[in-house]
Amino acid sequence: MKLLEERILRDGRALNADVLLVDSFLNNQVDAPLMAEVGRTLAEAAKDLGVTRVVTIESSGIAPAMMTAMTLNVPLVILKKSASRILQDGVIQTEVFSFTKNAAYQLTLKKRFVLPGDRVLLVDDFLARGEAATGASKLIEQAGASVAAIGIVIEKAFQPGRALLTEKGYKVISLARVAAMGEGYIEFAEADA
Amino acid sequence: MKLLEERILRDGRALNADVLLVDSFLNNQVDAPLMAEVGRTLAEAAKDLGVTRVVTIESSGIAPAMMTAMTLNVPLVILKKSASRILQDGVIQTEVFSFTKNAAYQLTLKKRFVLPGDRVLLVDDFLARGEAATGASKLIEQAGASVAAIGIVIEKAFQPGRALLTEKGYKVISLARVAAMGEGYIEFAEADA
Repeated sequence: MKLLEERILRDGRALNADVLLVDSFLNNQVDAPLMAEVGRTLAEAAKDLGVTRVVTIESSGIAPAMMTAMTLNVPLVILKKSASRILQDGVIQTEVFSFTKNAAYQLTLKKRFVLPGDRVLLVDDFLARGEAATGASKLIEQAGASVAAIGIVIEKAFQPGRALLTEKGYKVISLARVAAMGEGYIEFAEADA
Repeated sequence: MKLLEERILRDGRALNADVLLVDSFLNNQVDAPLMAEVGRTLAEAAKDLGVTRVVTIESSGIAPAMMTAMTLNVPLVILKKSASRILQDGVIQTEVFSFTKNAAYQLTLKKRFVLPGDRVLLVDDFLARGEAATGASKLIEQAGASVAAIGIVIEKAFQPGRALLTEKGYKVISLARVAAMGEGYIEFAEADA
């Protein structure tokens, strides 16, 4: 997605080889028209996959996922991050380790919002090591649904997340793929849409 | 907003006089077309207020706020909930007590995303005691901006939040106002839009 790559080059800040700040248009502040275009592009790329539901992870995934669900005209389901295990009927959880926060959390789904037979487009803001996407896919499949594709706004293509997910048979649709970065430069690999 | 009241009556669950579950269309699962209508209605109600920015609080406020920012064509800024104080340049915080979670958190704003002179439409999913809205307004004003209005999806009109905010001079725009509820019934007061 050319508009997104241009925006990353203009307003993203690579602090080092690993940390990319995009808080001015994706995380803390969200550029609404850009997010609408993100939603349209992901929806277009997934249009033949029979998607019945968009699933995302709170909270930075919500804005792009909302616009995607909007365009596809399907419900959006938000997976919550709980600090601890919840013992409650109808709730399923899996532990995810966040390298960004250096802490584990319990990714949490209310099962009645993902139904057997659903074809889910999982949308998240970042793909790095694939921990969150792997956990989310596990919950979706535990609920009896299948992952039609994993839509990512920004992929760190120099990290192993994509390989991990594609080895498991998931289709990954990344709108921007950062191949390498460092103070003052960001290089892209070819994106999926 | 009639469509919203109808949806609350159909799919909302009043567990008792205080707890209203709307997780099937607002919190855990988000109804995309309904949220688009929420955004249009809030944007229409605020159209003469000179709004330059929409601000919300993670994570249940993001979906309705995104659609409002989209319609108004202004940026969306997300206030984060931190467990602890962050000592960092350009970050301001205020403590908010959540009666829902029975715990306090640090509501956090990166100051560079709310500018002096900004006229902010603050959007949140619920208004009850007004703790979150009061904290958010405080941060917005500390950043040198003003609160043009506070847009609420569902107000618990039997709680003191609205009175607290209007006494301080804030304009509250609630799309649905629950006057009373209990197991099996929900009654509305007249909404603002």
